[in-house]
Amino acid sequence: MKLSEVLAGKGRRVVTVSAKSSITDAIRTMQAEKVGAVLVPDSGECPVGIFTERDVVRMHADGDRDFDALTVESRMTCSVVVGKLSMTIDEALGLMTQRRFRHLPVLEDGKLVGLVSIGDLVKVKLEETAQEAQALRAYITS
Amino acid sequence: MKLSEVLAGKGRRVVTVSAKSSITDAIRTMQAEKVGAVLVPDSGECPVGIFTERDVVRMHADGDRDFDALTVESRMTCSVVVGKLSMTIDEALGLMTQRRFRHLPVLEDGKLVGLVSIGDLVKVKLEETAQEAQALRAYITS
Repeated sequence: MKLSEVLAGKGRRVVTVSAKSSITDAIRTMQAEKVGAVLVPDSGECPVGIFTERDVVRMHADGDRDFDALTVESRMTCSVVVGKLSMTIDEALGLMTQRRFRHLPVLEDGKLVGLVSIGDLVKVKLEETAQEAQALRAYITS
Repeated sequence: MKLSEVLAGKGRRVVTVSAKSSITDAIRTMQAEKVGAVLVPDSGECPVGIFTERDVVRMHADGDRDFDALTVESRMTCSVVVGKLSMTIDEALGLMTQRRFRHLPVLEDGKLVGLVSIGDLVKVKLEETAQEAQALRAYITS
């Protein structure tokens, strides 16, 4: 199963903020949309930036707290590892567990087309496994 | 495969803070230990409390920012959903995706024995799947 199918199920809507938004705005957006990461689609050299809950914690721990004045652009991570619509769920999960991140932006021809979280992928994978088991049981009992 | 085996692989060490720690201390601990959640093993009525990156974001968004004075106990979540050593990976992942959380404390006889993240479980599951595929290929070619 591929990321294109995962996005067909969950939708391609992505929560974004602009590069010049303040950290405070990004945090409010995360909270309002109930997401753990916001994306920045176009920010100069970076095709897609990501700013997550973990960045908020890191800024706090570092005493880097001028959240109203700092821009998202100045503290986001530029996503160098991204997904493609043709990538399989297992490939995406492998990347995410190796590199230890939980959100994978999906790009197609350099354009942001979606975001998948580790939770989204696990959910689809468990459903798939349950369906396979059911089909197998049906086959055995027929 | 069961949570006992996952913990045998990753270790039973859990990052904890005391109930009366400040939010600032909890954030510093998360950052120093590179974890997204800290546990509070004993806090009055609650067998195990959890305080995560998401709570930090929520407090910020709510303007609830006296991080030096507030205690972890006052802002943590009491984990009502917990894992057991005999729980399977799929059961644990099912719980986590349904209830939308990423960390599951593991208790045995009311005592905290470990913590598994969705990333830990996916990693083990992918390794298991790869081993099965290899065994199958070996069987077919033999």
